[in-house]
Amino acid sequence: MKTMWLLLLWVALPAFAGEGKWTPQQVLELDPAWLKAQGLQLPPGRLWDAQRGTGLLAGAVNVGGCSGAFISSSGLVITNHHCVFSIIQEHSSPQRDLISQGFLATGREAELPGKGARILVPRAFTDVTKQVLAGVPAGADDLARFKAIERQQKELVAGCEKRPATRCQVSVFDGGSQYVLVDSVELADVRLVYAPPRAVGEFGGEEDNWMWPRHTGDFAIVRAYSAPDGSAAAYSETNVPHRAEFYFPLAPQGVQPGDFVMVLGYPGISFRALLAEEMAERQARFYPRVIDFYGEAIRILEQEGAKDAAGKIAVASTLKSLHNRAKNASGQLAGLARGRIIEKQQEHEAAVVRWAQARPEYAGALVSREELRESLKEEARTWEREFLLNNLRAGARGVSMAATLGQLARERAKPDMEREPEFMERELVRLKDQFEREQKNLFLPAEKRLLLAFVRRAQALGPAERIAAVDKHFGPTFSEKAVATKINALYATTKVLTLSERMAMFQASEAQLQARKDALLAFGLDLATELTALDAVKDRREGARRRLRPEWRRAVLAHAGKPVAPDANGTLRVTFAKVEGYSPRDGVFYTPQTTLSGVLAKHTDAEPFDVPDKVLATAREKRFGPWADAALKDVPVDFLSSADTTGGNSGSPTVNGKGELVGVNFDRVWENVANDFGYNPDVARNVNVDVRYVLWMLDQVENADGLLRELGVRKGPSMPGEKR
Amino acid sequence: MKTMWLLLLWVALPAFAGEGKWTPQQVLELDPAWLKAQGLQLPPGRLWDAQRGTGLLAGAVNVGGCSGAFISSSGLVITNHHCVFSIIQEHSSPQRDLISQGFLATGREAELPGKGARILVPRAFTDVTKQVLAGVPAGADDLARFKAIERQQKELVAGCEKRPATRCQVSVFDGGSQYVLVDSVELADVRLVYAPPRAVGEFGGEEDNWMWPRHTGDFAIVRAYSAPDGSAAAYSETNVPHRAEFYFPLAPQGVQPGDFVMVLGYPGISFRALLAEEMAERQARFYPRVIDFYGEAIRILEQEGAKDAAGKIAVASTLKSLHNRAKNASGQLAGLARGRIIEKQQEHEAAVVRWAQARPEYAGALVSREELRESLKEEARTWEREFLLNNLRAGARGVSMAATLGQLARERAKPDMEREPEFMERELVRLKDQFEREQKNLFLPAEKRLLLAFVRRAQALGPAERIAAVDKHFGPTFSEKAVATKINALYATTKVLTLSERMAMFQASEAQLQARKDALLAFGLDLATELTALDAVKDRREGARRRLRPEWRRAVLAHAGKPVAPDANGTLRVTFAKVEGYSPRDGVFYTPQTTLSGVLAKHTDAEPFDVPDKVLATAREKRFGPWADAALKDVPVDFLSSADTTGGNSGSPTVNGKGELVGVNFDRVWENVANDFGYNPDVARNVNVDVRYVLWMLDQVENADGLLRELGVRKGPSMPGEKR
Repeated sequence: MKTMWLLLLWVALPAFAGEGKWTPQQVLELDPAWLKAQGLQLPPGRLWDAQRGTGLLAGAVNVGGCSGAFISSSGLVITNHHCVFSIIQEHSSPQRDLISQGFLATGREAELPGKGARILVPRAFTDVTKQVLAGVPAGADDLARFKAIERQQKELVAGCEKRPATRCQVSVFDGGSQYVLVDSVELADVRLVYAPPRAVGEFGGEEDNWMWPRHTGDFAIVRAYSAPDGSAAAYSETNVPHRAEFYFPLAPQGVQPGDFVMVLGYPGISFRALLAEEMAERQARFYPRVIDFYGEAIRILEQEGAKDAAGKIAVASTLKSLHNRAKNASGQLAGLARGRIIEKQQEHEAAVVRWAQARPEYAGALVSREELRESLKEEARTWEREFLLNNLRAGARGVSMAATLGQLARERAKPDMEREPEFMERELVRLKDQFEREQKNLFLPAEKRLLLAFVRRAQALGPAERIAAVDKHFGPTFSEKAVATKINALYATTKVLTLSERMAMFQASEAQLQARKDALLAFGLDLATELTALDAVKDRREGARRRLRPEWRRAVLAHAGKPVAPDANGTLRVTFAKVEGYSPRDGVFYTPQTTLSGVLAKHTDAEPFDVPDKVLATAREKRFGPWADAALKDVPVDFLSSADTTGGNSGSPTVNGKGELVGVNFDRVWENVANDFGYNPDVARNVNVDVRYVLWMLDQVENADGLLRELGVRKGPSMPGEKR
Repeated sequence: MKTMWLLLLWVALPAFAGEGKWTPQQVLELDPAWLKAQGLQLPPGRLWDAQRGTGLLAGAVNVGGCSGAFISSSGLVITNHHCVFSIIQEHSSPQRDLISQGFLATGREAELPGKGARILVPRAFTDVTKQVLAGVPAGADDLARFKAIERQQKELVAGCEKRPATRCQVSVFDGGSQYVLVDSVELADVRLVYAPPRAVGEFGGEEDNWMWPRHTGDFAIVRAYSAPDGSAAAYSETNVPHRAEFYFPLAPQGVQPGDFVMVLGYPGISFRALLAEEMAERQARFYPRVIDFYGEAIRILEQEGAKDAAGKIAVASTLKSLHNRAKNASGQLAGLARGRIIEKQQEHEAAVVRWAQARPEYAGALVSREELRESLKEEARTWEREFLLNNLRAGARGVSMAATLGQLARERAKPDMEREPEFMERELVRLKDQFEREQKNLFLPAEKRLLLAFVRRAQALGPAERIAAVDKHFGPTFSEKAVATKINALYATTKVLTLSERMAMFQASEAQLQARKDALLAFGLDLATELTALDAVKDRREGARRRLRPEWRRAVLAHAGKPVAPDANGTLRVTFAKVEGYSPRDGVFYTPQTTLSGVLAKHTDAEPFDVPDKVLATAREKRFGPWADAALKDVPVDFLSSADTTGGNSGSPTVNGKGELVGVNFDRVWENVANDFGYNPDVARNVNVDVRYVLWMLDQVENADGLLRELGVRKGPSMPGEKR
């Protein structure tokens, strides 16, 4: 029997230089001939029209912190399953378990509206650097500088959001080198159209998370609706499918190894503009402490969850998030070492320094760099204290909420524009929602042990790093028995963990909170005092950085002499890539595509590898329909590409050189986590669901004929409101 | 920076058909044009000269159950590190730790003789089928048939071994289709020339065992000596290096992916001639019971070892062997399923049956097949009992030795030619040696728990499967307390675990053993009675098989119409292969070579990944010498090829089409364990040390100039006795 086999040729080829999360404007600054040679078949001007300030890239939208993409002119949006999980959960019940079964709307009227689901469509990007900096008074110190900038940002946002159904932000680029007002339409009527069973959407679960080979169908389809006049509107039966100007039609032919792709979306944060010493600080202190601190919380939640079935359910979501953070931290450390990222940054920095030393006009850059490095020493003195206070949320939820209630009561006493941004009116709906939802995560035995762990750490801090609230409520030295007794007393009487009481506290003034004589709340108010003081310290520090980093970056960019993509900041970006595998270690090569056969091979009939029956039957019978790949002779499931992504890119459309959707990004590989600090072409790989797996699920498994016709991959009528 | 990268091309190529452990004679029956096309550059007549009954293949030798190969005319033999470990151990002391440090003889006189080390060089292969079968009396029943055959075998061996320094065996091919007298020269003066540190020779330890990617330098070099007249002789200072007629010069250029190689050696046993139903029995019963029974022993030894440092050392070697067996069993089960091996055997068998049904001359084959299948039902009735008795050695050593002492005393009372083969005089030196060496493996707390586990299993057997000795000594039903008390009493008084006493027992008659009134020995004698009775059952069964299987195989071979390699039986074989990687699972491809960089990447500074300092330094400084591969730009360490190997092939020379040594085989990959039942070209891969890693170690790490000159890879004088 002839079998399909791999012929391996070792050839000296450069890995594809996929580095750069480019802003829309930067796409027009890149060499169009290079883009064409890579595989872009559209003129760059189609991706972004500088005149109009929009273009095809705006077909990528923000779906509640994730990315997503219009895939039809009639408002269909594809994103990750995990990005719309709350909508699926909202409509699930023991009688109608959409989480396990998945969901396919049988027609427009059957689509399920998602409470609080929002899609942001970028409308305009305006450089407001001058306005923002103009607000800084001459001779302002660093704190005043920061406050002035923040005030300008707030006012620009407030002005921008006077338009209805609008959400705005002033985004900071390159450490303060540029400020951009991003004006987005907020589509608030979002309805679920299709979700696969969770066992497809989360196939592999925690075990496969960050890993390759991957066989996850992490996608779902929603539809945005707007008012009949086309304007964004809250949910209404009279709403109609949103007309999307830009969208990415599905490419039924999919991709092949070596193909050019673009990944568009809203990457959250990266750290490539940090100085090598700043990176080294994260390597030496931050990530190890995350692993240590989160690791302790994980152990506590696992131990307590193992004792109590209801407790296990309560802590599951927290555990998942802690695991994800801790695993990420390990990956950052491994990747920093493997990619020699800090060493490379040192070498690069040294080259910029030598270059700048020969150019008097960059003398300020060198001074600024020195001052940034100096400030690390200052921060080191209270670093452990800040880490504990910054990570309250990873500990006892009752304490974290009590502290937030204290801050909120004090901030609400101020005029809206003078509050800390996270307590401004425009944020309070979300915060309140979070305070409600927290209820299902609470589990008292875990709470108590987490607080005990926090107090033990706080009491072990040196004299310069005391947390006064802890000293006041628990004394200066740790005694397990005494602290545990105190904690038991706190939790025995507090009302913070009682939903109705907590929601009443959410509206209360500081005096009302005080009057409650709730000991946990009292501890929270004292913590709030310290958090507010710490905010001022951090604001001053950030003010200094906003003064110094732009100076240094000016030298870095001039030295580069070509476009350099700024660090991720949650704004729209595009990255150019190839479909390609990689070698995770000596003797192993990860091929860039996985298949249905691989799904079957992983099937164990138990979570997280429990393929749903209907998928199993269709796959085993090899009912591929037209979705098999000619070379693989199988339906492709996931593929790798060398795109430069990070958190926030979940749900990003992966499109080919013609602007057609070939996949949906949903993860990075383990070896590529430290990509946040530097791009290593050898291992920089993101993980995408193959569009042919999406189509195979809709077609062969779900028989979603109407949806397929609407998506233009099946001939036939697709009238609004028709039965699918 | 340009980086080395893989270009993957998916092409429809047949995996190399490396199936077949060919006998030397069969090499001459294969199509020479095919062999040439594969890459054999020598005429097949060079590999094997039918006239002389020898050839280059005889350069592969048997090294104490392993394989090995002459690599110089002056008696140098390369094999695996683990195959000569006992010599290294023998000469190691806390003051001179050759295990950890490795060993390089500074000259001929410094080479270290190995007690009991033997190298067998094949001298002649004689088909004795007619003689063997002529001894079977007409109308003999199956037991008489077996006994007659065994008698003939013994007499042929005794006649053959009348020559000095000769070791002979009558090997059974294809279930009794053919009997071959193998006459070998026994070289008994074997001296250690070079061994790498254990951390190289066993790099990766249990963790990497059966695995790829692999970075183990599992090789060592010994030298065979003979008397000045060239005849084989016991150790003597006057001995001289053995002149090897056939040897494999080292190929300093190594191998490339796609290259043709041959792996020569002494594969022990395989099961491809079994009927599908016989295979299914092993799948359904044997391997699961191995995992269960050995797994229990592993847990006991690990738990008891954890409580006692000396105990941990005592049980380490037993644990290693149990782990290896249990892991093998899991691999067999996984591979049988993955390769659909039993289904394929069923299909093949059905084809042979259809073919034979149309040919009256093969009517007997069909009847024989039916009878073989029927006999499985009979065996099933007492299967569990036999499993327990067959696996005594995996349990309490005291019990196993007591039973053997009982058998030995009784067998020794018989004339040598009438004993069970394992108790004939020619075997007793080895058996005695084993009884001495066992002392270091004994650990009383583990002994007791293993015996308890055995008794529990025996007492749970059904009425048709009782073990009378257990019933007699421990009663018919299990009571943990009663059995434990009895076991404590047994071990409190027995002398079987006392070395000097045990060695006295080794010489004792049954009456003398009885007179000792040693309760453990008494239990052993009763077990011996049952083992002897079981031997008769097994002999009768084997007699039937020897009658039936050749009939069936005659049809199978005729149906094939081309040479078919017989199952492995410890005799000299050659397998033809290519250097190639494989896909262990969807999305992953194992490339066929590993490198020094991979060794460094695995280094953790702790066992089993603790690279010795001198290796580490040389590798980190990239002092590759001339041993780097041009494409890899690194020193290759291990490589995969598609050779058809099994246990016994450890230490097999892997040679190129010119007969030059390119590697030393030392393992198969996990996915290829079930290769014993059927060759699956997709995953049939053996693991070899690359000759360039051997040369790099000798040259760059050890500066073994003299040895390199003797091996012909370095210019310069290499006189006997010169300082190296």
